[in-house]
Amino acid sequence: MVGQDIGRLLISCPDRPGIVAAVSEFLFEHGANIIHSDQHSTEQGQGTFFMRIEFFLAGLSPALETAFEPIAARFAMNSRFAYVAHRKRLAIFVSRQEHALLELLWQRQAGDLEADIVLVISNHTNNASLVEAAGIPFQHVPISAEVKPSAEAFELQLLRDYEVDTVVLARYMQVLSSEFLARYPAAIINIHHSFLPAFVGANPYQAAYTRGVKLIGATAHYVSEELDAGPIIEQAVQRVDHRHSPDDLRRLGRYIERVVLARAVEWHVEDRVLLHGTKTIVFA
Amino acid sequence: MVGQDIGRLLISCPDRPGIVAAVSEFLFEHGANIIHSDQHSTEQGQGTFFMRIEFFLAGLSPALETAFEPIAARFAMNSRFAYVAHRKRLAIFVSRQEHALLELLWQRQAGDLEADIVLVISNHTNNASLVEAAGIPFQHVPISAEVKPSAEAFELQLLRDYEVDTVVLARYMQVLSSEFLARYPAAIINIHHSFLPAFVGANPYQAAYTRGVKLIGATAHYVSEELDAGPIIEQAVQRVDHRHSPDDLRRLGRYIERVVLARAVEWHVEDRVLLHGTKTIVFA
Amino acid sequence: MVGQDIGRLLISCPDRPGIVAAVSEFLFEHGANIIHSDQHSTEQGQGTFFMRIEFFLAGLSPALETAFEPIAARFAMNSRFAYVAHRKRLAIFVSRQEHALLELLWQRQAGDLEADIVLVISNHTNNASLVEAAGIPFQHVPISAEVKPSAEAFELQLLRDYEVDTVVLARYMQVLSSEFLARYPAAIINIHHSFLPAFVGANPYQAAYTRGVKLIGATAHYVSEELDAGPIIEQAVQRVDHRHSPDDLRRLGRYIERVVLARAVEWHVEDRVLLHGTKTIVFA
Amino acid sequence: MVGQDIGRLLISCPDRPGIVAAVSEFLFEHGANIIHSDQHSTEQGQGTFFMRIEFFLAGLSPALETAFEPIAARFAMNSRFAYVAHRKRLAIFVSRQEHALLELLWQRQAGDLEADIVLVISNHTNNASLVEAAGIPFQHVPISAEVKPSAEAFELQLLRDYEVDTVVLARYMQVLSSEFLARYPAAIINIHHSFLPAFVGANPYQAAYTRGVKLIGATAHYVSEELDAGPIIEQAVQRVDHRHSPDDLRRLGRYIERVVLARAVEWHVEDRVLLHGTKTIVFA
Repeated sequence: MVGQDIGRLLISCPDRPGIVAAVSEFLFEHGANIIHSDQHSTEQGQGTFFMRIEFFLAGLSPALETAFEPIAARFAMNSRFAYVAHRKRLAIFVSRQEHALLELLWQRQAGDLEADIVLVISNHTNNASLVEAAGIPFQHVPISAEVKPSAEAFELQLLRDYEVDTVVLARYMQVLSSEFLARYPAAIINIHHSFLPAFVGANPYQAAYTRGVKLIGATAHYVSEELDAGPIIEQAVQRVDHRHSPDDLRRLGRYIERVVLARAVEWHVEDRVLLHGTKTIVFA
Repeated sequence: MVGQDIGRLLISCPDRPGIVAAVSEFLFEHGANIIHSDQHSTEQGQGTFFMRIEFFLAGLSPALETAFEPIAARFAMNSRFAYVAHRKRLAIFVSRQEHALLELLWQRQAGDLEADIVLVISNHTNNASLVEAAGIPFQHVPISAEVKPSAEAFELQLLRDYEVDTVVLARYMQVLSSEFLARYPAAIINIHHSFLPAFVGANPYQAAYTRGVKLIGATAHYVSEELDAGPIIEQAVQRVDHRHSPDDLRRLGRYIERVVLARAVEWHVEDRVLLHGTKTIVFA
Repeated sequence: MVGQDIGRLLISCPDRPGIVAAVSEFLFEHGANIIHSDQHSTEQGQGTFFMRIEFFLAGLSPALETAFEPIAARFAMNSRFAYVAHRKRLAIFVSRQEHALLELLWQRQAGDLEADIVLVISNHTNNASLVEAAGIPFQHVPISAEVKPSAEAFELQLLRDYEVDTVVLARYMQVLSSEFLARYPAAIINIHHSFLPAFVGANPYQAAYTRGVKLIGATAHYVSEELDAGPIIEQAVQRVDHRHSPDDLRRLGRYIERVVLARAVEWHVEDRVLLHGTKTIVFA
Repeated sequence: MVGQDIGRLLISCPDRPGIVAAVSEFLFEHGANIIHSDQHSTEQGQGTFFMRIEFFLAGLSPALETAFEPIAARFAMNSRFAYVAHRKRLAIFVSRQEHALLELLWQRQAGDLEADIVLVISNHTNNASLVEAAGIPFQHVPISAEVKPSAEAFELQLLRDYEVDTVVLARYMQVLSSEFLARYPAAIINIHHSFLPAFVGANPYQAAYTRGVKLIGATAHYVSEELDAGPIIEQAVQRVDHRHSPDDLRRLGRYIERVVLARAVEWHVEDRVLLHGTKTIVFA
């Protein structure tokens, strides 16, 4: 069994009896063997049906997608095939802080990332040598209010040139325009340095310190037009206490941020995250 | 949708293509609507296949089981139907310590336990009033080396009289005989007061203290003939440090023990635990 | 060493050199032996100094407090002596939901609560038998807008009659007036059913569900005039996912609520919580 | 307040009244201001007393150590002064696997490591470029049964040459001789890829898989002559389930291993770990 013969079928559709029967019958008839399968029905079978099937099929080809079209149509499915052999192509956006970037590079080096990091874009230059040492192209794109439209146009051109399909904001401190976001729906992942929806905004560690919370956290989410309000992919927390200064919280926060972001990216590139309105279904 | 029309189908069989198609087609043809479905294939589809389907079927009756027999035979399935309306009947065995018993009573009172506690058996009397105040029959069965065979015979008779299908050892400090265990295969759940396989045996908190571990834990498992070696259902840990005496560890341990046991019992009575040799598949 | 000879000294004062020397010299000269000692300096020794010392002194008496006064005065201390032999007297306020109350009763029964529960007050009657079975007085005090002032007056009279020093709001769904709160500064503990400051307000589990968070939590805090903004004592979280309905979140939430509240009450009655403005120092 | 004026005093001695008074009086008289202080008494004040004080003293010099000698003698103390300005000098030993090494390099780069990594020794060459890119000397010391004594002699010479005071075994797959260990008592930290004492020995992830545990863990400990039995510094666990293969456990294990090792190294270099027989006191 080799990776190039492994596919994934992602489905969401109005729930009704017979969907699983139709899909599994289809895969069986085409000679596919199911490796993993996850499904979820909202509202106890009265709402939306979600499914992720990972299957093995010798000689897997896009012809399967065409053959599936009648089933997709019959059930009004939003369906998508993905192929393990077609690794996702990531661009990482980063500002000065390197910890989230480093974690993704670490994951890649360890062979734990089922994707290629094809480009790193930064509005600063301090991470250039680190990225280039890893053999990844680094592009410095300074941002200021005046140049933002042209800078974003340049970035979008770079993403096209490198055939990027997923953008990871690894502590990138610039807000992307609506136009930019619209080009990569559900494909831009951000790490927010707080346990959303607590402490939205600019300085969550100071805010957490001031409020005296006993846990700090981080949130990885898809970026939507409304700042800090996109669908949440993953969250985690870290215990803190009175001994921690705001700087300590920032330091501890870096650890939890990189864990949460790395996990969200891993799930995304393995096609484990499905959108359900402003929320996610994660078949982890 | 009412509980009496909700069924669960549990399957394990040698893996091969077509199982899901056959089962889902069967349910579809009989008018069942799938509410939840979980499946697992060992060895990437080359080993054993496990499935748990929760479905709704108006007028659900055992006739469905008969109708399923040809499919079960075709795939050499180990299959079982369970019905939400047929609540499991639990007997709790307890010695002096009441914390694990109390948690199960609490779960029951909160309406979180999908089962009936029909009997409590103890080799001590100190928990009698507590149990009877909850309206549950309490049976004192003293144990000593001489009377053990007759005591166990009496207990087994009680279990038959009360139509018990699941036994929960909630800090029951007696070892059950092989004969007893053989009567309730994969239906006797024990809470072991350590994070197995560390500190098997009698006094794990003292052993943990002596070793200076930084975490203590508890393990809920099915009881097998080999002491402390049955299939593990759930485990959890609690952070400790140098300030904790052996008594402190016992006290903290009580909290983690009751959480772990309650979770294992919940999963068992909801038919979420399947056996895989000496291990478990938990569709939590 | 018996409990009646164990005391605790709680101190906060402007930080400066010599405090520890003076206090430990004082205890040494009076024959006390330090069992535990914790201290904390804010702003690296430039801010406020906090200390909790647990000590053994044969024949411990209030004369020690008088002897300490010159030291307290010299360092402008806010100081307090507490005695293990003087167990705190708790009143629990509860509405319909019993889970937080039950946890405290469980703690008491297990011998893990260093305090006496002397009274339970409820605006409902459903928990009366449970409380009375535990041998604790239960007082039903119905609340409506019209009777609220007189009801609170009655409650305050009950607290005086029972010599209550700590009030625990164990899912008590009524807002206490400023006048009431002023009578028990830093002595009214509430469990808020969310991970504050996320989801302040009335229906946090529904709000958490709508936002699609991956963790839910609970917060125990001292009650201040500003709703949901008092000093936080303890917080914890529980992982959730897309399979959980709002009702599931409520059910899971009950587990984390009772753990968090029980831990906060334990720390409070053991004099481990010191106030630092709107935050807490917890010497756990 | 600058780092070069910050010192730490570590004490252990038979417990008795007056220790804290004497030490704090001493520091006060010498003009030191206490920043942090932690203490622990075993057996409720009847056993051994442990203390760690971090203090600021303008113009801090070793003269303070001399002045302290009479107090150390009076209380039969095992005492030690450490200076923030004298950063510890670490040598990291590593075999093929780089994850634990990378985490320490990451910590260093993030400025979170209060120590200098002055040398990396490996019995393999694959991590050489990584280490040298970080500007750290890399020394390849192949090990085989025949050359082991001379290899260890060479390693010890390197440690002397580089003035190393702490050795970190970051997944170093060779057993060190008793002679080697004796040269660095309580100064060789190992990461064991299991939650000790479960699964001691060579292949814990396979063993954990076979046993069907629901949590895997890692343990950082000081290395003693008895393999896997040295004083435990830190442990943590990670939830796993039936879906994880032995390889998955190894992959998940790498994450928990690096977190646990990094935390243990951090605590060690900040002088937060005191030995208590075969256990540790960690003033974290």
